[in-house]
Amino acid sequence: MVAYSDVAAARERLTGVVDRTPVLCSRWLNSLSGSELFFKCENFQRMGAFKFRGAYNAIVQLTPEQRGRGVITHSSGNHAQAVALAARLLGVRATIVMPKGSPTVKVQATRDTYGAEVVFCENSQESRESTTDRLIEDEGFCFVHPSDNEQVIAGAGTATLELLEDLPDLDIVIAPVGGGGLLSGTALAVRGMRSDITVCAAEPESVDDAYRSLREGRIMTNRQTSTIADGLKTHLSERTFSIIQENVSEIVTVSEEEIISAMRFLWERMKIVVEPSGAVALAGVLSEKRQSKGKRIGVILSGGNVDLQVFFQHLENKTAGA
Amino acid sequence: MVAYSDVAAARERLTGVVDRTPVLCSRWLNSLSGSELFFKCENFQRMGAFKFRGAYNAIVQLTPEQRGRGVITHSSGNHAQAVALAARLLGVRATIVMPKGSPTVKVQATRDTYGAEVVFCENSQESRESTTDRLIEDEGFCFVHPSDNEQVIAGAGTATLELLEDLPDLDIVIAPVGGGGLLSGTALAVRGMRSDITVCAAEPESVDDAYRSLREGRIMTNRQTSTIADGLKTHLSERTFSIIQENVSEIVTVSEEEIISAMRFLWERMKIVVEPSGAVALAGVLSEKRQSKGKRIGVILSGGNVDLQVFFQHLENKTAGA
Repeated sequence: MVAYSDVAAARERLTGVVDRTPVLCSRWLNSLSGSELFFKCENFQRMGAFKFRGAYNAIVQLTPEQRGRGVITHSSGNHAQAVALAARLLGVRATIVMPKGSPTVKVQATRDTYGAEVVFCENSQESRESTTDRLIEDEGFCFVHPSDNEQVIAGAGTATLELLEDLPDLDIVIAPVGGGGLLSGTALAVRGMRSDITVCAAEPESVDDAYRSLREGRIMTNRQTSTIADGLKTHLSERTFSIIQENVSEIVTVSEEEIISAMRFLWERMKIVVEPSGAVALAGVLSEKRQSKGKRIGVILSGGNVDLQVFFQHLENKTAGA
Repeated sequence: MVAYSDVAAARERLTGVVDRTPVLCSRWLNSLSGSELFFKCENFQRMGAFKFRGAYNAIVQLTPEQRGRGVITHSSGNHAQAVALAARLLGVRATIVMPKGSPTVKVQATRDTYGAEVVFCENSQESRESTTDRLIEDEGFCFVHPSDNEQVIAGAGTATLELLEDLPDLDIVIAPVGGGGLLSGTALAVRGMRSDITVCAAEPESVDDAYRSLREGRIMTNRQTSTIADGLKTHLSERTFSIIQENVSEIVTVSEEEIISAMRFLWERMKIVVEPSGAVALAGVLSEKRQSKGKRIGVILSGGNVDLQVFFQHLENKTAGA
């Protein structure tokens, strides 16, 4: 079973490969929240999200024989780019199964920037999985699951390990939760380093499977997956649920409006580009549900990959018209 | 005459008041430029731009009698907010002359967020100056010029002073140039700390008065002021021109397209929000005119105040429609 020692080992393995992301603060957000917030900026991580940590930690530990066969995953999001980049750095062939109609920028980043092969499937969980299974059977690829994988979890935890090295005296660490890989890694890192720090999570209320799972004591799924936080639509696995159940004190749910509002604070006030999923933890802190006044809170900003075309198109039009 | 010692003194004065902004790097932009770039992130400074340094350094040195009379400036940009915030922190009354039709966000930030009094004038340099002069005569306000002011220049130079403390072994420091306050302060800081570092500037080619001034050996003005880099429309003063003439090796001009492209790289690749004027120095580095291959270059990102309404309106519409 994955443990703190795996996070610590991942840390050694990833040194010099992942970027040690900065921790930023905002007078204005401290004042708004009534607490002291320390933002771990994984939006600045390579390929723009914490996902690179887990993907690299998983692929680098494959045997030469496994590496020779190549890796596969299904994702239209950051895990796709993370596996593609990590595989490229390690000289491993990568295949990514993406639903038809995935945003062009994401397909391009995965295929053209990071050099993975993209295979399209229908836009359903079943099609993703069956397409992936078929390719594993036909081609012998090694599967790197986005969250239900011990080395992916251990890698994700290294962000919090760095955060607590910089700031050991936090009261709370809060992360977003989707499949639970980041949250599990975060919880293991906190437990291993400072057992007195509370681990919390935030989740969009429209896909509140983790919140309900923790309440019900069993894995719940989402009845729909419509949320602006497109990285958090998935549900927990037995592996991530058991870690979360044991180590996470509370999951706060936030509305779509709260997510956009938190994201806007990060852009306008802190001048950093954070994607909707990446702003969910801050939304959780700012939500009235969170009793965090006067606390020192580590907030994981998980990623910053946003399609900026609308904004820059507007800017170019304005310039052309001026 | 303003000198390095004024920058060093400003540094002491501003400690604990200004934020020591981080220096960020980008593998991708290093690779694109063929050089090593170190970005001094003044977009993260209080009120979102380096301007706070100079405004505070000027106002804090006023006599009690002068403080009692209050301060005034004319600006629709970052200097307005800088004077407003610095004055508020020092308990000094501030009046800002802004042209009618200034963007609502800027008026609101100056008046509502930072508590200055806003007086509107016609949209011409003459009206700005005559309105300001009249108020100085009637009310006895102390004028804090955006760039033609020794303490504003010295304050602006502290950004580079911090940069060179972090990274003494740079080959080049490059800053944007408008009125020349930032560039003058940058040049004084570099000369005082490391005389072997080359000081360069970048300027929009549509308002290339500083470029032409350096070439002609006398102060030139702009025939028009249409540029997306709205912080760089002004021209040099005798004070800033003499410092620049003596200490700046080269001014590179960049097109509007190059400015937008550099800005987009900063947002998309580095995940930081930088305003057009703030991206001009990077545009200069990336321009083919700049022979900077293999060099270690400090790049001043001067500010990050951008109206994000278009982007977030689009996001909200998308969410509402989903």
